[in-house]
Amino acid sequence: MLVDTGWQTFNKRLQKKWSISMSAVKIGIVGLGRLGKRHAANLRFRVQGAELKAACSIVPEELEWARTELGIAETYIDYDEMLNEAKLDAIFLVSSSSMHAVQSMKALSKGLHVFTEKPMGVNLEECKKVENVVGEHGDQVFFVGFVRRFDPSYSYAKKLIDEGVIGEPFLVRSQTVDLDEYAEFQVDFVPSSGGIFLDCNVHDIDLARWFLGSEVKTVYAKGGSYVHKAFEEVNDADNTIVLTTFEDGKMAVIAASRTAFHGHDTHTEITGSKGILKIGMTPAKNRVEIFDVHGARQECVNDFFERFQEGFLIEAQEFVDCILEGRKPIVSAIDGTKATEVGFAMTDSFKQGREIVLD
Amino acid sequence: MLVDTGWQTFNKRLQKKWSISMSAVKIGIVGLGRLGKRHAANLRFRVQGAELKAACSIVPEELEWARTELGIAETYIDYDEMLNEAKLDAIFLVSSSSMHAVQSMKALSKGLHVFTEKPMGVNLEECKKVENVVGEHGDQVFFVGFVRRFDPSYSYAKKLIDEGVIGEPFLVRSQTVDLDEYAEFQVDFVPSSGGIFLDCNVHDIDLARWFLGSEVKTVYAKGGSYVHKAFEEVNDADNTIVLTTFEDGKMAVIAASRTAFHGHDTHTEITGSKGILKIGMTPAKNRVEIFDVHGARQECVNDFFERFQEGFLIEAQEFVDCILEGRKPIVSAIDGTKATEVGFAMTDSFKQGREIVLD
Amino acid sequence: MLVDTGWQTFNKRLQKKWSISMSAVKIGIVGLGRLGKRHAANLRFRVQGAELKAACSIVPEELEWARTELGIAETYIDYDEMLNEAKLDAIFLVSSSSMHAVQSMKALSKGLHVFTEKPMGVNLEECKKVENVVGEHGDQVFFVGFVRRFDPSYSYAKKLIDEGVIGEPFLVRSQTVDLDEYAEFQVDFVPSSGGIFLDCNVHDIDLARWFLGSEVKTVYAKGGSYVHKAFEEVNDADNTIVLTTFEDGKMAVIAASRTAFHGHDTHTEITGSKGILKIGMTPAKNRVEIFDVHGARQECVNDFFERFQEGFLIEAQEFVDCILEGRKPIVSAIDGTKATEVGFAMTDSFKQGREIVLD
Amino acid sequence: MLVDTGWQTFNKRLQKKWSISMSAVKIGIVGLGRLGKRHAANLRFRVQGAELKAACSIVPEELEWARTELGIAETYIDYDEMLNEAKLDAIFLVSSSSMHAVQSMKALSKGLHVFTEKPMGVNLEECKKVENVVGEHGDQVFFVGFVRRFDPSYSYAKKLIDEGVIGEPFLVRSQTVDLDEYAEFQVDFVPSSGGIFLDCNVHDIDLARWFLGSEVKTVYAKGGSYVHKAFEEVNDADNTIVLTTFEDGKMAVIAASRTAFHGHDTHTEITGSKGILKIGMTPAKNRVEIFDVHGARQECVNDFFERFQEGFLIEAQEFVDCILEGRKPIVSAIDGTKATEVGFAMTDSFKQGREIVLD
Repeated sequence: MLVDTGWQTFNKRLQKKWSISMSAVKIGIVGLGRLGKRHAANLRFRVQGAELKAACSIVPEELEWARTELGIAETYIDYDEMLNEAKLDAIFLVSSSSMHAVQSMKALSKGLHVFTEKPMGVNLEECKKVENVVGEHGDQVFFVGFVRRFDPSYSYAKKLIDEGVIGEPFLVRSQTVDLDEYAEFQVDFVPSSGGIFLDCNVHDIDLARWFLGSEVKTVYAKGGSYVHKAFEEVNDADNTIVLTTFEDGKMAVIAASRTAFHGHDTHTEITGSKGILKIGMTPAKNRVEIFDVHGARQECVNDFFERFQEGFLIEAQEFVDCILEGRKPIVSAIDGTKATEVGFAMTDSFKQGREIVLD
Repeated sequence: MLVDTGWQTFNKRLQKKWSISMSAVKIGIVGLGRLGKRHAANLRFRVQGAELKAACSIVPEELEWARTELGIAETYIDYDEMLNEAKLDAIFLVSSSSMHAVQSMKALSKGLHVFTEKPMGVNLEECKKVENVVGEHGDQVFFVGFVRRFDPSYSYAKKLIDEGVIGEPFLVRSQTVDLDEYAEFQVDFVPSSGGIFLDCNVHDIDLARWFLGSEVKTVYAKGGSYVHKAFEEVNDADNTIVLTTFEDGKMAVIAASRTAFHGHDTHTEITGSKGILKIGMTPAKNRVEIFDVHGARQECVNDFFERFQEGFLIEAQEFVDCILEGRKPIVSAIDGTKATEVGFAMTDSFKQGREIVLD
Repeated sequence: MLVDTGWQTFNKRLQKKWSISMSAVKIGIVGLGRLGKRHAANLRFRVQGAELKAACSIVPEELEWARTELGIAETYIDYDEMLNEAKLDAIFLVSSSSMHAVQSMKALSKGLHVFTEKPMGVNLEECKKVENVVGEHGDQVFFVGFVRRFDPSYSYAKKLIDEGVIGEPFLVRSQTVDLDEYAEFQVDFVPSSGGIFLDCNVHDIDLARWFLGSEVKTVYAKGGSYVHKAFEEVNDADNTIVLTTFEDGKMAVIAASRTAFHGHDTHTEITGSKGILKIGMTPAKNRVEIFDVHGARQECVNDFFERFQEGFLIEAQEFVDCILEGRKPIVSAIDGTKATEVGFAMTDSFKQGREIVLD
Repeated sequence: MLVDTGWQTFNKRLQKKWSISMSAVKIGIVGLGRLGKRHAANLRFRVQGAELKAACSIVPEELEWARTELGIAETYIDYDEMLNEAKLDAIFLVSSSSMHAVQSMKALSKGLHVFTEKPMGVNLEECKKVENVVGEHGDQVFFVGFVRRFDPSYSYAKKLIDEGVIGEPFLVRSQTVDLDEYAEFQVDFVPSSGGIFLDCNVHDIDLARWFLGSEVKTVYAKGGSYVHKAFEEVNDADNTIVLTTFEDGKMAVIAASRTAFHGHDTHTEITGSKGILKIGMTPAKNRVEIFDVHGARQECVNDFFERFQEGFLIEAQEFVDCILEGRKPIVSAIDGTKATEVGFAMTDSFKQGREIVLD
């Protein structure tokens, strides 16, 4: 959490929370792919109060990596075996999406705290089941990885909104935009990812709900395969726009694109009755500006990992802090369900070509 | 180092460096004031390969903080005692400026690696002595805390320059500007800090030398107490400008101010034969823009600590990595001497009202 | 046209077009309200090749203003009288919206060139009639005042698109946003203006059609009275979003707001297959940045008049140039019809709460 | 003046000043080179209250241009002949620099108002003579073309300063930077232009004096031929920095460069006791941003003409308004003298390698 805060906050945390007398939270991570490795390294080296004790993966090379690079002694191919044998306080799920729900429920039932990457479940039924199990284990921390809430700029924006700086927020515009060079690679993942709305916009949906404090009522989605026709063939799109209304009449415009050339461009704008906040409109790589034959320019971040590296660290720290302090996280199982529900409604709206009204 | 890098870099470091088989570097920190606490927390919780084993301070409360908040068992009031009793690999000096040189030399003589906050010494003689001792211990890492070199934007700019993006650099403009609210508080420190040039511009001098790859030949300093007359009374200033030339005819304009209202504004511009790089021209607190009755605006960082929190972490990691890998750091004792030498020449120029030519 | 162009363009125009041997275009202006006065002053003092010969208004004070301030000798209360008596080449309509169509047709029938402020007609039938009359007078210039096309930044963006800088454009996001302080004043005008979509978004519709080169197929409009409930009472809104699709599958998101606090914020973004153009994202008043207790900030333009003062001059010059050179303008009667048609469809969609498919 | 102002200002001017009853100011222009043509076209077509009645040039083609493109009937090769024969109210000097002083004095002596492009004279003696003659003709308007004072952003900054927005200003940083592509072309002009300080920085000097309200006391100039060695051979430079102090201890840093690749980059920063104003830090060509493989970027203005096209129009209008209203301009003969005096002192300082103290 150091990364995003001034000295005062840092000092406050030191004084209040990370008392060395607390014993570390023993964590087992599941899944060591690209994002899993990052989470593992954070938990191993950067998160105070965490002890990354075990790792689980069906890929032997990933376990070897955990042993040699991170020094994790206990590695497992079988999730159930890890649950039974490793003496863990918490599970950190970065496994494939289809495993999140069942692995979450198993860990909760064993009395463990759970962090799960999004999506919480791959369909609404799964999500509801997880919600129920979470409800039955009210003393355990259940945390869905909506990392953008923990990015220093997003959390600062929320703070400003809560302080009334822009009055009552009523409109969110949010987008997730990836570099075109990754697009072709994504075509094969459409069947498992669920398509562009579930793949890209789950965070935007969560942010819109969070900033507006309301639930989605209708979605109306449009889009097309403007650059890569391959997406059309799998009934998906490479650029989409969704106009969403909320129960109290508020609105959101949620966009996704797989075809940017300047960088990964994930930004959000919140309009309120007294002002507007814009977060990350130019996704600058850093504070360097270049003035040359191309004009006055800034290079941009390449991907979600580069953009949200601070957020990944902060959310993991917050997960551990919630456990140590007996607090509830700001992201609940209901948030996980809602994001999935709305993502499916968007997909339906796009495929059916009409407005969908949520229950 | 995670903080500033994309996944590729992170992965590379994991694979190459932080092999878990290496034993951690045992470190003793000296000085636990505001900056010392931050360094201590980084070393304790965030720097891979580091074990913060001991702490030394003449302030009992600071040692109590180290014991209870960081869990440091070995605390010392006496520096020599720590050197003799704690089994350390390295010393991390965040003590008062007047102690840096002598403590550095003692540790080096004991065979320890040394990180010292700037300044390396409070006068040129001290610096030269340290340089000599460093020379006699060529196998030990000696690292001067020019933190701005390790800020992700500054190091990225250096990389672009080395790649030739702006051709041959010939002009640096760099400034260190503090919030006005801290100004009155600084008046009392002028005698010990050495005044505005040594206090504020040491980093700018180091950056100019680093980016231009040349040594300062002449300095011509002007300034005044435009807002706080108290500085004039101690023969100092609250705003200054120095025009500097280098041995090969290159130039730098180095500015300092204690009277900003928008934030801590430390920025640097490098002009080359093919383009210009600007680093941090607007010292934005984060990626949030506010649109309200005051216009379209960004809030700014408050102080050096907030601006360079990533740099403090990265330089500490780099210090440890240099030890583990047997590498020389990019900041040497000579850099420490030069910055001090030029800072004194600037002060002389300002006080004497004339150009000073360095030997 | 000087205002927006470098010396080369200026020189080219001088050499090619404004040959002094051409006789000036004799113009009669109709309507001298706020915008009418501005157009009149431009035609009188700034537009080359124009002679503002007559003025017509039903407000005697406005005619007095024309006589004393602009030196217009011939002033009329009756439009028909001006058409018959003044020896004019062209009519410039800045009258109330309900008069545009009938006055346009009368002037065309008299053999005069016509500039009409938007809207071309207050309903689709009127527009179609005007289109027909324009068709019957193919040698006369008919020009609809879509001023944003003539703003230097918008026309530069069009040039970049035509040059292929962003590949094939497929998505436009455009908005018209007014200061909140004018909102209450607008409530009374809803019945005559036709509401927020016709009042604010006609330019955005025109821009989307222009940049995408396609016609609107569906509109889906949402909105609400989030700040000023008075709009709801007249079945209008103070903030709206429309998701629009085009015949070839392209899209546009068109937004309107009457409740900004930072300034008049009219901006447009065009996404193509190779890049994105953004026009005027921060509606800065000028090139001044202020760094003070409010942060790093720019003041913004207050209203449409301040933002598009160059555009108003350039479009008037272009109207006159088209006459002098026998060219067709880039805005046709069809553009006027389409913008009105889509504006009504948006209004219907908003009021009926459903997608509207255009014929 | 329309260009830079909102409707309110425009309306105010219309009501107060340009009463049609005033007879137009009859103007003769001298010099129709690149800048002369621009001034001539403005006076002919855009400046209210001006009648461009005669033109003088030693280049027959330029006079032909004036006749055919601008319709100026009276053209002269001989300046004295124009003074004697044309019935003029005012002279507008855009002739070569060496002629400004003598032509100014002749026109003043004939009872004419005079606008002269900078420099007012090519040496201090000439300037003093002009000052004297101006003093003897106190009822005539004498106007030196410091166009940057009339740029909308610069004049807005002055207004903010006068309103106290940044408290008491004490430091100006100002630069004039040209595109590298024009550099080689400039080498031949060094003897007649007087070198980089007189050629580029005269405006910056004027701005520093204007914003600070004080006179230059010392100058200390450094620089070099970092890109084009040809400048060194004529004892000039392609990049320079001057540190300047003023009589009341205020400061300015004035920079010049002939070697930019991004555009003509003329910007100015004013620091005061309560805040900072920055004018034109990124010399954007317009409001368009491009997001593509080069990052997030803005194209920049190419040259002084493109950057200050509004200023050239506004200053000409102001010259005419001063005549019509019997007002003194904000730029006086003393301003012309001072800028030249300081420019020479800078040149001396650079050539002699030492600080120069002005009398």
